[in-house]
Amino acid sequence: MYQLRPIGWVESPITDRDLAPKQGDEGAPDAWLVFDPGMRPAIRDLEVGAEVIVLTWLDRASRDVLAVHPRGDPANPVTGVFSTRSPDRPNPIGLHTVQILAIEGTRITVRNLEALDKTPIVDVKPGLEPSGRR
Amino acid sequence: MYQLRPIGWVESPITDRDLAPKQGDEGAPDAWLVFDPGMRPAIRDLEVGAEVIVLTWLDRASRDVLAVHPRGDPANPVTGVFSTRSPDRPNPIGLHTVQILAIEGTRITVRNLEALDKTPIVDVKPGLEPSGRR
Repeated sequence: MYQLRPIGWVESPITDRDLAPKQGDEGAPDAWLVFDPGMRPAIRDLEVGAEVIVLTWLDRASRDVLAVHPRGDPANPVTGVFSTRSPDRPNPIGLHTVQILAIEGTRITVRNLEALDKTPIVDVKPGLEPSGRR
Repeated sequence: MYQLRPIGWVESPITDRDLAPKQGDEGAPDAWLVFDPGMRPAIRDLEVGAEVIVLTWLDRASRDVLAVHPRGDPANPVTGVFSTRSPDRPNPIGLHTVQILAIEGTRITVRNLEALDKTPIVDVKPGLEPSGRR
């Protein structure tokens, strides 16, 4: 067992999982990443306009689910969760590609984040494209 | 605090962090994802040839590091870890895009995994490309 320590929280108008978009580019409203003040040295090189990957802990997910109907639609055949983006999975880590719109201290405005309000943030990484590598 | 529960382990010829490739496509040897037998329903729809994202817990990383010289090279200016792929970060979750080469039960051979031998696996997700979505 390993301990994940939240480094910040999502602020978003999205509060109801059933109404949330399934993906960030399916109509997610702008949202905020609000980091612990102690994270300032870690976020200091994030830049407005950049695409980054935000990792969250989907704290309202079910961890004992191993297969689902994708997108919650019974018409989709049951599929192992590792082939889906279901939040319900043994370790419910959310992976969100977002664009940074504004940075004010440790508060960052982002586009395309479908996470629920108050979701814990656990990491931020550069985008997966080779051009974003450091 | 949240509890991460390993669902499997990496088997790899890479055992020394200092000699490991920094990225999966920088000469990583083939490696194996060895899942707990209980994960069979979750992995059952993974397919040979597919690109998937493997999430690991980088258990040999330092969690109190907030800024680094990228790629461990002192010539690179100190950078906040959220703008780098440093394994040293508050929550050392590894994100690895790998290609599935073979599947034998709960043992999966993959290309392009730079994780060290015995690294815990915590999740597997479809690739981030829109075409890979379910």
